[in-house]
Amino acid sequence: MFESDLLGAFVRHRSIGIFDSGVGGLTVFKEIASLLPGENLIYLGDTARVPYGTKSVATVRRYALEAAEFLVDQGVKLLVVACNTASAVALPQLRERFQLPVIGVIEPGARRAAESQNRRIGVIGTEGTINSNRYPEAIHALLPDAEIFTAPCPLFVPLAEEGWAEHEIARLTALEYLQPLLAAQIDTLVMGCTHYPLLRRTLQQVLGETVALVDSAEETAKSVQQLFQQQGLAKPEHGGHRTFFVTDVPTRFERVGQAFLGNSLGRVEQIQIG
Amino acid sequence: MFESDLLGAFVRHRSIGIFDSGVGGLTVFKEIASLLPGENLIYLGDTARVPYGTKSVATVRRYALEAAEFLVDQGVKLLVVACNTASAVALPQLRERFQLPVIGVIEPGARRAAESQNRRIGVIGTEGTINSNRYPEAIHALLPDAEIFTAPCPLFVPLAEEGWAEHEIARLTALEYLQPLLAAQIDTLVMGCTHYPLLRRTLQQVLGETVALVDSAEETAKSVQQLFQQQGLAKPEHGGHRTFFVTDVPTRFERVGQAFLGNSLGRVEQIQIG
Repeated sequence: MFESDLLGAFVRHRSIGIFDSGVGGLTVFKEIASLLPGENLIYLGDTARVPYGTKSVATVRRYALEAAEFLVDQGVKLLVVACNTASAVALPQLRERFQLPVIGVIEPGARRAAESQNRRIGVIGTEGTINSNRYPEAIHALLPDAEIFTAPCPLFVPLAEEGWAEHEIARLTALEYLQPLLAAQIDTLVMGCTHYPLLRRTLQQVLGETVALVDSAEETAKSVQQLFQQQGLAKPEHGGHRTFFVTDVPTRFERVGQAFLGNSLGRVEQIQIG
Repeated sequence: MFESDLLGAFVRHRSIGIFDSGVGGLTVFKEIASLLPGENLIYLGDTARVPYGTKSVATVRRYALEAAEFLVDQGVKLLVVACNTASAVALPQLRERFQLPVIGVIEPGARRAAESQNRRIGVIGTEGTINSNRYPEAIHALLPDAEIFTAPCPLFVPLAEEGWAEHEIARLTALEYLQPLLAAQIDTLVMGCTHYPLLRRTLQQVLGETVALVDSAEETAKSVQQLFQQQGLAKPEHGGHRTFFVTDVPTRFERVGQAFLGNSLGRVEQIQIG
C-alpha cells in the first residue's frame, strides 16, 4: 500500500512490462490481458537474439537485464519475466538491479504443480530451464517429498512456430520426449516453456486425460492479480492499452504472434537494446 | 598473383577465416580442412545470437558484418561465409566493406545444381535463405530455363542438433516438407543450410537414389581450392592449425560440434562482438 492516495493513483496507472525472448511470452501476455483487462501492457520480444533456451546462463542474464532495463525506462509498475529460461536463471539479478516487483513464471507454475496428488511431477522445458533445476527446487520447497522427472524438449518450440502443434509429427515427438515421464506415472506435468501451451491438446492426448497440465502462463497471471490486490497496484478501469516492441523487424513476430494471441497484434515497433 | 615473392609468402601463410551463426558451418570447415589440410583455419560461431535463419535481412547483415570484422582483425587472407542465410543476404555488403576475397556457400552450390539433367531443381533452406531467392537467381544465371522448386524446412536444424537426423520423426518431417518437390519430379536437391548434410541419408531415403543431393559445404571447399590455385594463395605445408571462437559459453558448441566434425574440437575460446 502507498503512503498517499496520490502516489498510489500515480503508480496504479503505470503499465505492466512483460518480456520474453520472442513470441512465446504472448501466452503470458494473453492471460494477463484476459484476467486484468484494465491494465496497460507493454510487451518486449527480444526477437533479434531469440531463442534464450539454448544459450548460457551468463548470456541469458545479460539479455534479460537489457530487456528489463528497456521496460523499466518506460516507467512500468511491475516487471513480468514471461520466459521460463530467463525466469530460471536471471530472477535474483533482476530483483537486485531494479526497484520494482518482478514476477517470473516458475514460482507460479511450481505452486500449482505442488497440488499433485501422487507427488510424482513431470517438468518439461528448454535445455536452459531444465539444466537450471529451478522448477524442482521451487516444487521441493513446497512439497519436499515430491518426485520430479524432467525432460528438455527442444523440438516443441519449432513445432509450435511451424504451426504443427497438432500434427502427427508433434504427437510422435511428444511420445518420444514424454515416454520416461509416462513410465514414471506422473499425475502432473508442468509445461515449463511459454510455447508449450500451444501443444496442450497433443500433450494431453499422449499423457492421457488423468494427467494435469500446468500452464505457467495462467498461474503467472493469477500471481499478478494477487500481488495487485495485496499491494493496491491494480488499475480499476477497463480498456487498457497494449504496446508491442521487438528487437528485430516485426514481420515474423506479427505473423507467428497472431497464432499465439488468437487475433492481430496491431502496431509493433522495432527498438534496439544491448 | 603477387608483385613480390615475399608479399606472396606473407599472405599465403595467413589463415582462412570461416564464420557461421553457430555450429552448422562446421560442415564447411570440415570440407575445407579435408581438402586443404595445410591451411590454418579460424572458425567463428556467433552462438550468442544463433540462429540467423529466422531473422530479418537487416539484422543478419549487421551480425554478418560484425562477425566478419572480428575475423578480418585476425588478419585472415580469405573470408568464407559458411552460413547460407548470411551468404544469401550479406555477401555484397561484406565484399564492399572488406578488402579481401569473400566466398559464400550459395554460388558454389548453385554451380553444382546447374548440372541437373532434367533442369528441375529443388532448393531447401531456412526461411531467410528461401525468402531471399538467392539460390534460384544464382541457378538461373547459369541455367536460364531451369525450373526451381523451393521449400523452407525450419525443423531440420533442431532435428539435426537433437541428434535425430536419422530418426523416424526426421523421415516423416522430410516427407512432409519434400512432398511438393517429389511431385515436381526434381532430379537435384540443394541442401541450402549447413546443418542439412547431417540429414543426407534421411533425405536420400525420402527422395530416392536417383535424386542428386548438392552439399554446398563440399562445393564451397572446392571453390576455395580453385581460388587459391588461381591466385597463388595456397599455403603448401601440411598440419594447419585450427582455432575456434564462439560468442556464447563454448559448452554446447563443443558438444554439438563434435557430431558435426566427427571428432573433438580442442580449445574453443569465447569472445564478444557487436
